[in-house]
Amino acid sequence: MPEFRQEPITGNWVIIATERNKRPSDFQARNEERKGGVCPFCKGNEKLTPPEITAYREAGTRPDEPGWWIRVVPNKFAALDNLGAGLDIRRNFYTNMNGVGAHEVIVESPEHEQSFDQHDSIQMREIFLAWRDRHRALMSRAPIRYVQIFKNEGAIAGASLEHPHSQVIATPLIPAVIEEELEGARKYFVDRDACPYCEMIAHEDEAGSRLIARNQQFISFCPYASRFPFEVTILPRRHQADFSRLDDAMIEDLGAIVKLTMQKMSTSLSRPAYNLTLHTAPVGFTGSPYYHWHLEILPRLTIVAGFEWGTGIYINPTPPENAAEYLRETSI
Amino acid sequence: MPEFRQEPITGNWVIIATERNKRPSDFQARNEERKGGVCPFCKGNEKLTPPEITAYREAGTRPDEPGWWIRVVPNKFAALDNLGAGLDIRRNFYTNMNGVGAHEVIVESPEHEQSFDQHDSIQMREIFLAWRDRHRALMSRAPIRYVQIFKNEGAIAGASLEHPHSQVIATPLIPAVIEEELEGARKYFVDRDACPYCEMIAHEDEAGSRLIARNQQFISFCPYASRFPFEVTILPRRHQADFSRLDDAMIEDLGAIVKLTMQKMSTSLSRPAYNLTLHTAPVGFTGSPYYHWHLEILPRLTIVAGFEWGTGIYINPTPPENAAEYLRETSI
Repeated sequence: MPEFRQEPITGNWVIIATERNKRPSDFQARNEERKGGVCPFCKGNEKLTPPEITAYREAGTRPDEPGWWIRVVPNKFAALDNLGAGLDIRRNFYTNMNGVGAHEVIVESPEHEQSFDQHDSIQMREIFLAWRDRHRALMSRAPIRYVQIFKNEGAIAGASLEHPHSQVIATPLIPAVIEEELEGARKYFVDRDACPYCEMIAHEDEAGSRLIARNQQFISFCPYASRFPFEVTILPRRHQADFSRLDDAMIEDLGAIVKLTMQKMSTSLSRPAYNLTLHTAPVGFTGSPYYHWHLEILPRLTIVAGFEWGTGIYINPTPPENAAEYLRETSI
Repeated sequence: MPEFRQEPITGNWVIIATERNKRPSDFQARNEERKGGVCPFCKGNEKLTPPEITAYREAGTRPDEPGWWIRVVPNKFAALDNLGAGLDIRRNFYTNMNGVGAHEVIVESPEHEQSFDQHDSIQMREIFLAWRDRHRALMSRAPIRYVQIFKNEGAIAGASLEHPHSQVIATPLIPAVIEEELEGARKYFVDRDACPYCEMIAHEDEAGSRLIARNQQFISFCPYASRFPFEVTILPRRHQADFSRLDDAMIEDLGAIVKLTMQKMSTSLSRPAYNLTLHTAPVGFTGSPYYHWHLEILPRLTIVAGFEWGTGIYINPTPPENAAEYLRETSI
């Protein structure tokens, strides 16, 4: 029988369609033609991007030349830019505001053929160091209130370039998804004097059935009210609202758990397309006792259709307990 | 320069990426192989579906035999069923509930090769009569609180069968998308003693720049804070919270405006994949002075990616004023 499940922080419901119970082999393998042409993110092609914002590079090499292992550049097709400008908000029946912000690309490797499950652990650490650097830098720039870091892999997940990269968009708004989590977590904290994410970690550790992987600093699991088959949440065990406060010991463990989770997903689901998003505290909430940063990995195996758009209720044909078991037992 | 725009009822923001300004020809044409095989919705194949719930059929013909022009059957792969059962909600750190509800298919034509822009006006009226019938029937069944009617066209919009059909899912929950609209509209009403949707109609009539089509009873336009290129809202001019109260004069005009809008969209965008969803009042709100039912048409021309999943802020590369102009000026 199908089952409704409620996400404990936002209160959003999903339908777990238990009888369909789709297994990894029931999802179509990602089938993409390799694109030809020159890649602007490959080493040697540095002149094809706007000038670099920062790079981790060998001593003695120069900006916009080879010698880097991580490189950050402005997005050539920026969704937001003009970071220096003032905000001009016009409130009428309809409200609008000029599009101030920033949109950057973090090139994760000089090599075209790499992905999160193929980098070595040193490179994984460097990627998350770059995430932290750019998060810190942009969070300090007025009027920015939120910095969104994310990764699209695969054309059906919205990636227009194959070369491994993450993106950073800084906005002067607190996004609705984050505000919904903040408000739910705030209410939980008022009622029970505890961070709901810290409690979730304890629940998942105890239940065990939705766990994928654990290490000293992090836990990786399929959330109870998963909207999508093989959806994954990665949470730091330590209470921390703001991603950019993670320390060096945490970065090592974050790289390790993301790599292991992605390796299991790649093996089990034949390198699925996915979106990976960081959820972290906005400006003004970085010391929050109730918010807790996390990563969400959303494999793109099903199609969001009319029912989901009309209701916000997602129909998930793979119970997260089954998804977690497949991933847990996948040897890499 | 990109622009932030706020939806006046929910408060959700979008980014209109004005410089990209994608035109109809910038979107890839839908490219789908026709599926072979036997279609369970075609006339003569009535035995391939579960027994019909209702049908509009010629006098003297029998259920589950040819002679119908509209046929309603249970969905063979129901997301929800077991409508007679009681609700069993279990509240703990995680809350769940048994999946009580209904999931039906409204087969819109006995002919396989038909779509909303190809039906004649009599058939359009009959389709919306069937929507109204099923909406009324399911809204009266405890513990149902919301009846979602929607339509997926095209594989990338989630349609698994090509034969023209709509779907009906009845749930014992008020969906989050509807609750967000209810709450926003309620606040607007408390502040200004007016239905925000009625005010939106007046604004769109006056501005004119986002209009696609109008008739005596309905208005069709690209909403100010469109999340997607060529997104369309269709609103009844008369204040009415509950779709199932629409009268026969309204049904004629609804059929006409939906057909005209879809014809323009099909011509302009080469029969795009789309989701069409009904937004209407839940049980308990059917006489609401602030809620106002409407249709949303969401063409699937762009990909929802990491930024949208992480923030809820949609990046739309086609300003709705431009989309509306293309559609308005498309001759059919």
